Amino acid sequence: MNTKEEIAEWFKGLQNRICAAIETADGGGKFSTEEWERSEGGGGVTRILQNGNLIEKGGVNFSAVHGKLPENISAALKLPVSDFFATGVSIVIHPHNPHVPIIHMNVRYFETLPNNSLSFGEGRGEASSWFGGGIDLTPHYVNEDDAKYFHAALKQTCDKFDKDYYPKFKKWADDYFFITHRNETRGVGGIFFDRLAEDAHHSKENLFEFVKAVGETFAPVYTELMKRNSGKPFTEKEKHWQLIRRGRYVEFNLVYDKGTKFGLDTNGRIESILMSLPAMASWQYNHIPEAGSAEEATLKMLRKGVVWA
Amino acid sequence: MNTKEEIAEWFKGLQNRICAAIETADGGGKFSTEEWERSEGGGGVTRILQNGNLIEKGGVNFSAVHGKLPENISAALKLPVSDFFATGVSIVIHPHNPHVPIIHMNVRYFETLPNNSLSFGEGRGEASSWFGGGIDLTPHYVNEDDAKYFHAALKQTCDKFDKDYYPKFKKWADDYFFITHRNETRGVGGIFFDRLAEDAHHSKENLFEFVKAVGETFAPVYTELMKRNSGKPFTEKEKHWQLIRRGRYVEFNLVYDKGTKFGLDTNGRIESILMSLPAMASWQYNHIPEAGSAEEATLKMLRKGVVWA
Repeated sequence: MNTKEEIAEWFKGLQNRICAAIETADGGGKFSTEEWERSEGGGGVTRILQNGNLIEKGGVNFSAVHGKLPENISAALKLPVSDFFATGVSIVIHPHNPHVPIIHMNVRYFETLPNNSLSFGEGRGEASSWFGGGIDLTPHYVNEDDAKYFHAALKQTCDKFDKDYYPKFKKWADDYFFITHRNETRGVGGIFFDRLAEDAHHSKENLFEFVKAVGETFAPVYTELMKRNSGKPFTEKEKHWQLIRRGRYVEFNLVYDKGTKFGLDTNGRIESILMSLPAMASWQYNHIPEAGSAEEATLKMLRKGVVWA
Repeated sequence: MNTKEEIAEWFKGLQNRICAAIETADGGGKFSTEEWERSEGGGGVTRILQNGNLIEKGGVNFSAVHGKLPENISAALKLPVSDFFATGVSIVIHPHNPHVPIIHMNVRYFETLPNNSLSFGEGRGEASSWFGGGIDLTPHYVNEDDAKYFHAALKQTCDKFDKDYYPKFKKWADDYFFITHRNETRGVGGIFFDRLAEDAHHSKENLFEFVKAVGETFAPVYTELMKRNSGKPFTEKEKHWQLIRRGRYVEFNLVYDKGTKFGLDTNGRIESILMSLPAMASWQYNHIPEAGSAEEATLKMLRKGVVWA
């Protein structure tokens, strides 16, 4: 059975492989590396690329933290008060060119540790563990071919493990990556899954293999999307629209994103958590795209239930 | 006794007076006016100035809304489920020049209406009402003279009504306008107060007079700060720092601000609520000001408990 140390080690390797692939595709930018420790237990490695050739700001974070689970999180997760261990890789990439989409990926493993200080009753913790994760794409301008390519790649990865995964996790992403107060999805979605625990159909080893496959899907897919779109010319108006869409991205991350909330609530490293925010974003009062424009066409596609694969 | 209609009407007049004063001080920009209705009851008037001479983006909102209080808000306010009425003026102004501070003001009145559908027990609503509000200043560069002038003006307004108000509400502002995850205050604070209800010392009329006085303090104080600082030259570096500080402003408003949360939770008008977000903001990974710089000096003053008046 995979230990938490083995899982964390694999995630750390994934971080390095993804950074190397992104650097090659960028053709200029280099990731900085900062190792950090969390006073309550564990730490991480934050890798940031700023002002690359193609990437304006991107972060590829690894962390493996442990300690006492804060009460508000225990309650939210419906878990007894216990110690926890969490490890994962989180990525957000903001490109310069508005025709290259923003991308996000997270793969993670979470484990509660038996709480030996409680000897009976409801609070007595049983160790439990699960995987979670997701990849979603946020184009500033929805390109249907790219969205189909992206979803086809995710479907292919999912289908190798369980034919139910893609439809289930695609819907989950539609529901999760949703900006309720704007009544729009963050982008064209992708997959999202949480609390994937071993059961009669899937061993823990099998789940870990699936999460590995998701992690390995990231680099080839995103570097392909960089290659397809980075050479496209863009106008001032398109750049402005990109900044408006990045504003929406900020809204999602600060208002809804559970990973961000978990990080803030567990006294995580702020600069690592908020690396997801763009170098520049804009809010304009009541911005409404012109009728018939590419911007309006994109807005119309930011909804749940679009079939991309 | 002041009725809710009279209070709302006074707030509406305040909105107009403040917009007129800001337009005069700006010397070019004009506020747009949009009236809106809320499907669950009530509505408002949103007035926005964009790309003025001195103001980059500013909003002065009036609203008077009513309806059923959402359950999550009833619970947060520890109120029985009931109908509510809320009216107020909310202001956020983002100037072009980084030497002019951002300012925020809110004055509001809230009333729960007796719930006649419940005839006994804890859920039986009694009508109750209170005032709330605050003004706080967020300089990109803390100017001590300006901060003292600002706090002295607020103290003078408070002292006319109750000598305990300023010290109490100044501390409340320090605690409220605090970005916990950054361990820094949003700016140099000001005053904040909530659930100010009539009691043995203050009649409702007296509380309303206080809230009026707070409202009328805004325009002379902020136009003075505009006059003092708008002519100062600034560098690219100072403009960049302004964008970073605006990023912190966005973090506060989306993560902590209760007015924003109340608006989102009561299906408020999104563009009116989020008018507080700046035209442009920036996030740079792990931005640390140079030792001995003006930026570092400002950061050091963004803490609770500084005595300004």
